[in-house]
Amino acid sequence: MDNSITFPLGFTAAGVACGIKKNGDYDLAIVHCERIATAAGMFTKNIVKGHSLMLARKNVRGGRAQSVVINSGNANACMGKRGDSDALRMAAAVSERLGCNPAHVLPGSTGVIGMPLPIERIEKAIAGVCLTKKGGAAAAKAIMTTDTYAKQSANCFSIAEREIKIAGMAKGSGMIHPNMATLIAVITTDAVITRCALKSALKEAVNRSFNRISIDGDMSVCDQVLILASNLAGNETIKKGSKNYKLFADSLSSVCTELAKMLAADGEGATKLLTINVNNARTKTDALKIARAIANSPLCKTAAYGNDANWGRLLSAAGYSGAKFDPSLADIYIGKVQVCKSGVGVKFDENAALGEMDKKEVLYTVDLHSGIHSQTMWTCDFSTDYVRINADYRT
Amino acid sequence: MDNSITFPLGFTAAGVACGIKKNGDYDLAIVHCERIATAAGMFTKNIVKGHSLMLARKNVRGGRAQSVVINSGNANACMGKRGDSDALRMAAAVSERLGCNPAHVLPGSTGVIGMPLPIERIEKAIAGVCLTKKGGAAAAKAIMTTDTYAKQSANCFSIAEREIKIAGMAKGSGMIHPNMATLIAVITTDAVITRCALKSALKEAVNRSFNRISIDGDMSVCDQVLILASNLAGNETIKKGSKNYKLFADSLSSVCTELAKMLAADGEGATKLLTINVNNARTKTDALKIARAIANSPLCKTAAYGNDANWGRLLSAAGYSGAKFDPSLADIYIGKVQVCKSGVGVKFDENAALGEMDKKEVLYTVDLHSGIHSQTMWTCDFSTDYVRINADYRT
Repeated sequence: MDNSITFPLGFTAAGVACGIKKNGDYDLAIVHCERIATAAGMFTKNIVKGHSLMLARKNVRGGRAQSVVINSGNANACMGKRGDSDALRMAAAVSERLGCNPAHVLPGSTGVIGMPLPIERIEKAIAGVCLTKKGGAAAAKAIMTTDTYAKQSANCFSIAEREIKIAGMAKGSGMIHPNMATLIAVITTDAVITRCALKSALKEAVNRSFNRISIDGDMSVCDQVLILASNLAGNETIKKGSKNYKLFADSLSSVCTELAKMLAADGEGATKLLTINVNNARTKTDALKIARAIANSPLCKTAAYGNDANWGRLLSAAGYSGAKFDPSLADIYIGKVQVCKSGVGVKFDENAALGEMDKKEVLYTVDLHSGIHSQTMWTCDFSTDYVRINADYRT
Repeated sequence: MDNSITFPLGFTAAGVACGIKKNGDYDLAIVHCERIATAAGMFTKNIVKGHSLMLARKNVRGGRAQSVVINSGNANACMGKRGDSDALRMAAAVSERLGCNPAHVLPGSTGVIGMPLPIERIEKAIAGVCLTKKGGAAAAKAIMTTDTYAKQSANCFSIAEREIKIAGMAKGSGMIHPNMATLIAVITTDAVITRCALKSALKEAVNRSFNRISIDGDMSVCDQVLILASNLAGNETIKKGSKNYKLFADSLSSVCTELAKMLAADGEGATKLLTINVNNARTKTDALKIARAIANSPLCKTAAYGNDANWGRLLSAAGYSGAKFDPSLADIYIGKVQVCKSGVGVKFDENAALGEMDKKEVLYTVDLHSGIHSQTMWTCDFSTDYVRINADYRT
């Protein structure tokens, strides 16, 4: 199965090097739908917002869009009027090249804040770009910043023998936060779906995926998740609340979750993916608060990097999370090894624990024995390379 | 001026190696008052609490205490009944050695969570300890964990020609958080002061000092600040709300602030102290939210480590802090160099900015031009050594 953004019917894409990145890497991605698509988006909650993002947010409001254009290497943020004008020029260039309404172009920018976009280079690259059915992988590459590999995922399911395809690409790396911080994800589908159902399914999927990952707790000014539906699959229109809606939302969630886990695993300097399960909490909110506190804790994350089964840091993070629970009921497991029972350390096989820690995917389970609610967060460990990458990002 | 904990009249102290730390460093501190002192304490808000801390909190409730005993290298936390019993045994050993009521002993423990205290070694060391007027420096050394130097500070002022002395010692390093996380501080004074005034002055001072520093955002289960007043200075009793109360509270704040800044500057792996001033916010809360978000941001802290004048990260952290402000009014300065005006980057002299960044003390100023409220936080940069120290702390 093709897992690129052009997998669903109606989409073409391209990724090119327009000269923002000094090393000549791809830095401009375009995804285009052959017809006007149903569209929805979710955007950063940071009150400082990138100029490209603000235009995308404005353009997607009507629920219709045809193209997405994203540059990496420069956030086009904190640039005043120049930033707004550059975003408009990006959209205009795409409109001219592809013959669509500029108000149907959704721009995005990711990278360093406060530097002017080299807009002429971007315009020149757009004018010469060639979109194809095979351009998905290049597009996924072109949105990367400090990511070490391109993230793509696809899924399909059937409604009355009509196959519906969903595909997505994402970039993340640093600054990923539970509340959907620095990440850009673009999802395409060929489902026939109402605007309202699309918006609702996106919200649900983002809440189950991108909002459950944390890299360093910082929220970016440029985070956005966009979805375009070409409506070409020929299925009966998916409406909110229907059985088919649930199928679509689950399939979309699965694509988003796969992307989210890739983002967490490829956090800046990450050497492993951490899955944090908090089970049997009093409320869903309590479970999430604890999972989030552990996922955001530099101490828990550095211990993971050092293969240190330091469960005390997990319990301590749970303790300050704001959740209500009785520490004397809490059990903690690292992988299959129980390290804490009823809030007290148990003698455990250090080698077995080390075996669980020294994996590409490490599982922490905190069982509170206080209720029936469970939640999961994903994050990565915190390495010396994280610091190195971020200490001289701008220079 | 002697700046050790024994500077005020009536106090003796000792610091010894009792064998908790494998390398033979000092790991047991005792501070003793020749008479029953007026006492107050502030404790971690983490719902998981160390056993020694819980006993100190219980014992200080009556407002009277005579001795403080602190071990480093082991947190005595998450140990169940054994932990409570060990804390009681520490207090009993001090009571026996120094002839005071065990309920007037305030114990503390700091270090790794979930390991049993070697209580026999501690008891043996306490039985042989010799407290002197010169033991303050050794005590300050004995409470250190990953601190690179002992923190001591003292101050004095006069009320009607009676000199009043205040002195403090503190340990911190990792896990320091605005809400008074992993730190232990012990303050002594010879002021004649009511219990109520002492408690209130301590709260005020902690709020102006230890609650304004952040190392990694984690809150420890063992944080406590204790104050003992020997009442030997011969001054007119300081009562809450009086003019002398203000003198005392200010002097105490000054000691606590000096200690707090030392803690921030000596954060794990820190290479510099960061002072974050947020000026002219709409409310005090908004100013503090922004200062705190910057102080807790791994991105801002790694940029500081790399001497990278990446002001966009400061503005981005302000944006997600939860504070209300208009980004298009915000000015940002690094030292004296303005890097952002009205929310937009300004051309600045990169060498001048580098000069400001490449100091032991770096000043960030965010001016919101939205009101009259200003607040300060202190933190440190985030280095590769921070990760190294915390990746294998337990092993």
